[in-house]
Amino acid sequence: MFVYADNAATTAVSKKVVEAMLPYYTEVYGNPSSLYTVGQKAKEALEDARERVAKLIGAKPREIYFTSGGSEADNQAIISAARLGAKKGKKHIISTKFEHHAVLHTLQALEKEGFEITLVDVHENGVVVPSEIEAAIREDTALVTVMYANNEIGTIQPIAEIGAICKAKGVLFHTDAVQAISHVHINVVEQNIDMLSISAHKFHGPKGVGVLYARGGIVLTNVINGGAQERGKRAGTENLAGIVGMTVALEDAIAHIDENNEKFAKLQDKLIDGLSKIPYSELNGDRNSRVKSNVNFCFEGIEGESLLLLLDDKGISVSSGSACTSGSLDPSHVLLAIGRPHEVAHGSLRISLGEDVTEEQVDYIVKSVTEVVEYLRGFSPFWDDLVEGKRPHVFKESSIA
Amino acid sequence: MFVYADNAATTAVSKKVVEAMLPYYTEVYGNPSSLYTVGQKAKEALEDARERVAKLIGAKPREIYFTSGGSEADNQAIISAARLGAKKGKKHIISTKFEHHAVLHTLQALEKEGFEITLVDVHENGVVVPSEIEAAIREDTALVTVMYANNEIGTIQPIAEIGAICKAKGVLFHTDAVQAISHVHINVVEQNIDMLSISAHKFHGPKGVGVLYARGGIVLTNVINGGAQERGKRAGTENLAGIVGMTVALEDAIAHIDENNEKFAKLQDKLIDGLSKIPYSELNGDRNSRVKSNVNFCFEGIEGESLLLLLDDKGISVSSGSACTSGSLDPSHVLLAIGRPHEVAHGSLRISLGEDVTEEQVDYIVKSVTEVVEYLRGFSPFWDDLVEGKRPHVFKESSIA
Repeated sequence: MFVYADNAATTAVSKKVVEAMLPYYTEVYGNPSSLYTVGQKAKEALEDARERVAKLIGAKPREIYFTSGGSEADNQAIISAARLGAKKGKKHIISTKFEHHAVLHTLQALEKEGFEITLVDVHENGVVVPSEIEAAIREDTALVTVMYANNEIGTIQPIAEIGAICKAKGVLFHTDAVQAISHVHINVVEQNIDMLSISAHKFHGPKGVGVLYARGGIVLTNVINGGAQERGKRAGTENLAGIVGMTVALEDAIAHIDENNEKFAKLQDKLIDGLSKIPYSELNGDRNSRVKSNVNFCFEGIEGESLLLLLDDKGISVSSGSACTSGSLDPSHVLLAIGRPHEVAHGSLRISLGEDVTEEQVDYIVKSVTEVVEYLRGFSPFWDDLVEGKRPHVFKESSIA
Repeated sequence: MFVYADNAATTAVSKKVVEAMLPYYTEVYGNPSSLYTVGQKAKEALEDARERVAKLIGAKPREIYFTSGGSEADNQAIISAARLGAKKGKKHIISTKFEHHAVLHTLQALEKEGFEITLVDVHENGVVVPSEIEAAIREDTALVTVMYANNEIGTIQPIAEIGAICKAKGVLFHTDAVQAISHVHINVVEQNIDMLSISAHKFHGPKGVGVLYARGGIVLTNVINGGAQERGKRAGTENLAGIVGMTVALEDAIAHIDENNEKFAKLQDKLIDGLSKIPYSELNGDRNSRVKSNVNFCFEGIEGESLLLLLDDKGISVSSGSACTSGSLDPSHVLLAIGRPHEVAHGSLRISLGEDVTEEQVDYIVKSVTEVVEYLRGFSPFWDDLVEGKRPHVFKESSIA
């Protein structure tokens, strides 16, 4: 059986999306900046996409900037807020300990330039407490940036509450919504979001395209300088095929949020209940305030990498931590942020369901993970130490409520 | 008759390229950073593309960084050289007056930071004199960046000579090869090029993908921070379909350079000879040292925009200046750089041929431009002034040698 259950890493592009993109490769191939017909047709398609994307999140078309992906959008949002803040002497930025690296590494670069960064706690349940954001806001705070849903453990943050706080305090608020946009209903006006990042390939759109929403009045700083595309704020000939593909994919994703969530919720319960039966295991992140497609577990005495490779042998594609950091030997900063000790943070498993996953596949995942964990523990010296009482257990034998 | 003759703005994606891309949308859709099979297949395709692109320009695979396009590559090359230079107290950069805005605007941003920029002259023929670059190099010069072929007038620069000078002086050398890579033979080692930018959509590849070549040993500065993709130097999930498409397109383009140039040379001669018969017109840029697909003329008493729109009515897609600046009312900085006065710099026409253009189409272009220029002059008060001797002519009545 083949089961792709790593949709938080990336998704297959849907056939509908591919078909929507094709004309923009070979027919409407003009440069949207060109004045002649084939260019103007491209320009119309570009502006049509901008209107449609804007509508989906409650924004105005001129507030939508197309980028090369979520990382670029995160970079540009944060750098823009930093430059705007610095002009008024505000050089303090608030974020959280478990943001995506596109946020954290941009903040680190700003820190080297003299910005002060406060990373608030995300607690054991992986959820930020809005009053702690509020308490961290200072006179010189230029930006609050909190991800909408975490990419590893899927926990959903109280974005509307944080947005209201930031609005009241007059501080810009950005959210990396890459992992949330296809799972929860987002309206930038109602939720007081000033800037928001999206990446197409997380919801069956193509890789290499994303969106930065920036509320009207926010003057962006270019990450890429050059031509006058995207109202002068993002140079480079527009990836129109990608933009059209993303738009179709986003409309599809948002139209099916409730239906998908209903389906995912049942499968998520099945996965959590099933994997909880593995001794000395525990769900990472709050069970309720999480994206319905996400299940993330830690298993004592297991190396995440070995777990993945043996599951791959069984046809199951899942991940340990996020794809972006899979080359790294460090334990997940997300799991450390929610208080997991190093030794179990290495033994994590992320399952992220897709729309076509079946109950049978979910049963197969539970069965396979159970077998592989048992097998790996069979020759783990670390596990032997636990069994022999030479090391204390981190988890209880049973995590079933 | 429909004639697309704006291939310097962008090109149609070839069917072969589209077919090469398709499997990466729906089959090999894994994240190249993922450890399981569908991720590793993507990783293999990515590294295969890197090897093939490297081979095409005489580079090593680890010297190839995939970007979202030529503009991003230009930005990253220049910023990287600036940061490397600044560490050694070198804050002087040499470029030319007629670079692409992706270069010029990046240099302007650095100027605001305290870098000193010298823009050397490109003379009436649109060609840089290497000894003038050499004379501009100082002890504190961090970078020389000179485009390989100009995007508006197509003039080819003496890149190998400039490369040799920079090597001898120990100064980093970058070239924006976006308009050259499919028209001239480039070898980064033989031509002493330290960094080079490429954009896929200029040679029948998709929009939204490009290459930055950076010689081994050059430590790049990120333009986009985040995940560890591209050896940690360019964050964001790789646009694999785009990268594979670009690779196929680049192989195709480079394999056919000589054959295409032979064909283009004849058509270019026909166009130049034909348009030279229009009174008070002149070719922009050197006739010989230019990309064979490019023809760029100025016509006295003409507004470029009107010319384009009337040619579009006749089915001809051509441009005035470059697509990237077509929204601007300013005259082309390229034409001003080669000494064209404002009044004629507004009346320019760029024709950039594609591989499938026919002799018949070229005849049609000459006939149509001749008619439209005559028509527009018929109700131009500016032209009346010239005819009545109230203003001096810029060009001779006949530019035929």
